[in-house]
Amino acid sequence: MNPSLVTDARVNAGRLMARLAAMAEIGVTPGGGVTRLALSDEDRDARDLLSAWMREAGLEVRFDDVGNLSGHRPGRRFAPPVLIGSHLDTVDKGGRFDGVLGVLAALEVVETLNDLGIATDLPIAVVNWTNEEGVRFEPAMTCAGYAAGRFTREEIYAKVDRTGHRFEDELRRIGYLGEIGNRPLPASAYLELHIEQGPVLEAEGLPVGVVGGIVGITWSEVTITGQADHAGPSPMHLRHDALTAAAHIIAGVERIAIEQDETAVATVGRLAIHPNVINTQPGQAIFSVDFRHQDPAVLERQYGRLEALVDRVCAERGVTGTVNRFWTSEPTPFDAGVLDAVREAVNSLSLPNRELWSGAGHDAKYVAERCPSAMIFVRSQGGLSHCETELSLAEDIEAGANVLLRATLSLAGS
Amino acid sequence: MNPSLVTDARVNAGRLMARLAAMAEIGVTPGGGVTRLALSDEDRDARDLLSAWMREAGLEVRFDDVGNLSGHRPGRRFAPPVLIGSHLDTVDKGGRFDGVLGVLAALEVVETLNDLGIATDLPIAVVNWTNEEGVRFEPAMTCAGYAAGRFTREEIYAKVDRTGHRFEDELRRIGYLGEIGNRPLPASAYLELHIEQGPVLEAEGLPVGVVGGIVGITWSEVTITGQADHAGPSPMHLRHDALTAAAHIIAGVERIAIEQDETAVATVGRLAIHPNVINTQPGQAIFSVDFRHQDPAVLERQYGRLEALVDRVCAERGVTGTVNRFWTSEPTPFDAGVLDAVREAVNSLSLPNRELWSGAGHDAKYVAERCPSAMIFVRSQGGLSHCETELSLAEDIEAGANVLLRATLSLAGS
Repeated sequence: MNPSLVTDARVNAGRLMARLAAMAEIGVTPGGGVTRLALSDEDRDARDLLSAWMREAGLEVRFDDVGNLSGHRPGRRFAPPVLIGSHLDTVDKGGRFDGVLGVLAALEVVETLNDLGIATDLPIAVVNWTNEEGVRFEPAMTCAGYAAGRFTREEIYAKVDRTGHRFEDELRRIGYLGEIGNRPLPASAYLELHIEQGPVLEAEGLPVGVVGGIVGITWSEVTITGQADHAGPSPMHLRHDALTAAAHIIAGVERIAIEQDETAVATVGRLAIHPNVINTQPGQAIFSVDFRHQDPAVLERQYGRLEALVDRVCAERGVTGTVNRFWTSEPTPFDAGVLDAVREAVNSLSLPNRELWSGAGHDAKYVAERCPSAMIFVRSQGGLSHCETELSLAEDIEAGANVLLRATLSLAGS
Repeated sequence: MNPSLVTDARVNAGRLMARLAAMAEIGVTPGGGVTRLALSDEDRDARDLLSAWMREAGLEVRFDDVGNLSGHRPGRRFAPPVLIGSHLDTVDKGGRFDGVLGVLAALEVVETLNDLGIATDLPIAVVNWTNEEGVRFEPAMTCAGYAAGRFTREEIYAKVDRTGHRFEDELRRIGYLGEIGNRPLPASAYLELHIEQGPVLEAEGLPVGVVGGIVGITWSEVTITGQADHAGPSPMHLRHDALTAAAHIIAGVERIAIEQDETAVATVGRLAIHPNVINTQPGQAIFSVDFRHQDPAVLERQYGRLEALVDRVCAERGVTGTVNRFWTSEPTPFDAGVLDAVREAVNSLSLPNRELWSGAGHDAKYVAERCPSAMIFVRSQGGLSHCETELSLAEDIEAGANVLLRATLSLAGS
């Protein structure tokens, strides 16, 4: 193999952009976005198109018993492949890049290797994980999770959407119920290119980011109980208003994150007050608190600060408060070796080398439990995702695909 | 007339408490409260019982074209009566005293005058206003408002409850659709005894209060628009979270009242956030702000402070805010002469003379537009009302009824 052929390799950005545009026609919305829910007719059409492209690229197409779809390119060695990809399903009125970028960039990596006549030591496989979004069949990332052993097939088959359709029936209906032997895992390594779904790269003027891992998350529910009362007759100093207490706690939750460090985030996303009528002081407020951080010790400390905050505010205001921590997802640091391959690729392309952690979940979270994994982020305009206006620029997509190409080559050996 | 007979007059508290207990059986709830919605079967039964008691007391019973029910005792002079009373309707799962106390205490005043053989210069009339609560047929105080000329008969007749029943049909059904000539107004003066529905008298250890007027109210709706975004990927400094902005404003609304004076109150009772899901920063928050004060200039100033607060918080946080002031009810100061009669009555009974304003609306608000009016409050345990545990003690009820008796005597002339 000609070394310069490998080290100078670059994807065909025009082909990749054309395929992104073609795929965006499947489930296109009036607002210019995409609705392609898992196992819908649109998902089937997208899979059919991807499969056709894979076969044109000489890949062997397989799908497993939950519909995870992969295309395989042999290596010089018989070994588990370097797996690259993401997902083709979208949320309702989602965008043209979330997920699909990672699948089609992976396919473009293979096309580029074909064009350049580059063979690799390890096989390379392109994967489309089923039902990443979890919008139609909750929760998210079920089928990467299944491949990693997190869910049983029975659990997944039994999931029912809002109109009563079972996962298994829909998977069979669209023609993608395959064999367990076609699972994409085991793999030698896993790499996923994805839009950032956040504003950091844009704010810092960077086309791509190296994803160090996926943050841990802890979810709590806070319940404040005061005394509902007329808005008129109670003077301020005799009130036990649950909402004003909640307001002070919500402001304090924000401080907990800000005072930690620049990567810590805290969100109150859900709030209900009772009785919720204009002329009554609320007697109860129930709200969620979402803390995220890459360090599990920080998550513990933040939760402790929340408990102390609730106790203090409630004591000051003569109301009672309880905090129920009901779910925690531990941080997932990515593999040092795979990250090194990504960093070298970034450097070889003379791109700025910025590492950040993903604040959202991705298929890579579960895959990382089974094989060395990492992710690459591409700048997303306005940090927007899960909306019709989701946009990544062609030059950023090209940069991200080239990073994926070179890191894949490095991992697969050429 | 024997002067000491008049100046020493006291109600028969046992009779009053027995009638309160008997009336509380009509619509009694498993929780020990009362559900007696306007124009329901229970309202009819309560009216029938009141009418029977009125007739036993020698009163001439009348009801007008919206069902306002009154019982008339002649005076030595032919003139508009001194009108005393309140309402028999309750909220859903309400209490045994809100409204009914004022009606039965008024009846007890007449019974006491009968027992003592006291005649008055002016006639005295006991009134039960229809649909004070406004729970079944919105808004509140419609039929005192009708008598005062605030609403037309057509408006009131056309009101429909949640199950599609019209006001007029229900009024006819229960047998209380009467003649317009039976309106309780005009009157020479109006006095209403009512539970406080607030905690001030209890907090200060006082059985009764002289009500100086009904506060003005201004209602606004605040809309905060930020950017909905995932709870994970956005660092705190790049967020435009509508709820954290709202939290700072809600805390500030409380300060606006506290910093004004001890009678000013401010309440955020209604709040909705969007999309209201655990893992998304809220992009929108809409909430109500209720300011109440006896001075209209203060209400204007508080509204101005709200606008400035919203502007400041929104500018600091990169979100936009609008304030829509959609309803204002001007303060209603009560009549100086009627208040003097109440104060003298309080003093004659050696009770503490505490004046406070009503933070809630009452029939007296509308009646005051047509004749000299005032109210007397009775201490309410825990300041609670509109709930099954609403409670005023017998000795406080007796004190309040005696104030009503003596002030009525003073206004009617004996």
